[in-house]
Amino acid sequence: MKIAIVLFEGFTALDAVGPYQMLCHTPGAETFFVAEKTGPVTDDVGSLSLVAGKTLAEVPSPDVLVVPGGPGQEGQMENETLLGWLRAADATSTWTTSVCTGSLLLAAAGLLRGRRATSHWLAVETLRTYGVEPTGERVVTDGKYVTAAGVSAGIDMGLTLAGRLAGDRFAQTVQLLTEYDPQPPYDAGSADKAPADLVAEMRDGSRFILQ
Amino acid sequence: MKIAIVLFEGFTALDAVGPYQMLCHTPGAETFFVAEKTGPVTDDVGSLSLVAGKTLAEVPSPDVLVVPGGPGQEGQMENETLLGWLRAADATSTWTTSVCTGSLLLAAAGLLRGRRATSHWLAVETLRTYGVEPTGERVVTDGKYVTAAGVSAGIDMGLTLAGRLAGDRFAQTVQLLTEYDPQPPYDAGSADKAPADLVAEMRDGSRFILQ
Repeated sequence: MKIAIVLFEGFTALDAVGPYQMLCHTPGAETFFVAEKTGPVTDDVGSLSLVAGKTLAEVPSPDVLVVPGGPGQEGQMENETLLGWLRAADATSTWTTSVCTGSLLLAAAGLLRGRRATSHWLAVETLRTYGVEPTGERVVTDGKYVTAAGVSAGIDMGLTLAGRLAGDRFAQTVQLLTEYDPQPPYDAGSADKAPADLVAEMRDGSRFILQ
Repeated sequence: MKIAIVLFEGFTALDAVGPYQMLCHTPGAETFFVAEKTGPVTDDVGSLSLVAGKTLAEVPSPDVLVVPGGPGQEGQMENETLLGWLRAADATSTWTTSVCTGSLLLAAAGLLRGRRATSHWLAVETLRTYGVEPTGERVVTDGKYVTAAGVSAGIDMGLTLAGRLAGDRFAQTVQLLTEYDPQPPYDAGSADKAPADLVAEMRDGSRFILQ
């Protein structure tokens, strides 16, 4: 089993590493970070670089496809090298997945048309532009497409997928190994829970035009 | 403000990237991944490499020090280059922190003697060897020392620290930006919650001798 996690300049680190950590121990699976070129790919902050070990062309038919998001997603929305690879990879994948605004890339590639999907809360309505039905859920499974909400939701997505790939017992093992028993010190992790003025401030400053 | 996240071969990816994601937007802070040598450093699985942008020597006095864990920690327990750097960096740091078995490195450097600290649940009792009082809490603050339990606990540690560094409002902004509103699909994230036979199996297979 091949798991391919796509990298592009300006991705958000945890979008990629969250699912990686949940999936990387899957029995019989090899995980690859892939990008147009091999070598370091820098995140949206500019302080972290993850190494792409393979080019997209070198991993044409992954069984599991993971597309992270981040501000850099915007620069990829018309990148036919990437979008074409996504379409081709999706044609034979068992699972096609995304985290955060990675779903906009799947949508731009035409892969989510008519489906339910999610994205970062600031971006989720943008899915409509591509004929996708946005939902407010944290992890959305529609057929073989699994999309996660913003950034940290990729951990929940990855663990969900680990269970589908290798069973509940395996997923529980991963959860225990990673001590994934979250206890956030604040309760501001969604637009429903965060202070209203903070939500408004973030919407105002967002790169997304929202309904 | 300088934030230094230490890398070594065989670190666990999320141990480093969890806190990074929570801290990387801290106003006025620059975050560095540091290691003995610059360049790619490979994780415990062998599928992920993060780039160390600076050597330890190039960042001698970080304000915030983050030490991840992972199986590779074992090979560092007598590495005087790293331990000496930890002692010197700690001498002027504002916060000295760890995730998972990173606390064993802080302990081996003599920095946690007489303090309360935590570690990965399979490793936490080993802290006693170094005169450290182990606790079962997820994030432990004792003076300027903040230690986190296994792997994903680094996210909660990072968010806690973000609040201490830049205020509650900032930490809530980070939480909302990363949509950190966890909804794990299983409830096996701690030894108290996971199936007893899974916990026993993992203790049996552990590299740690446990009480």
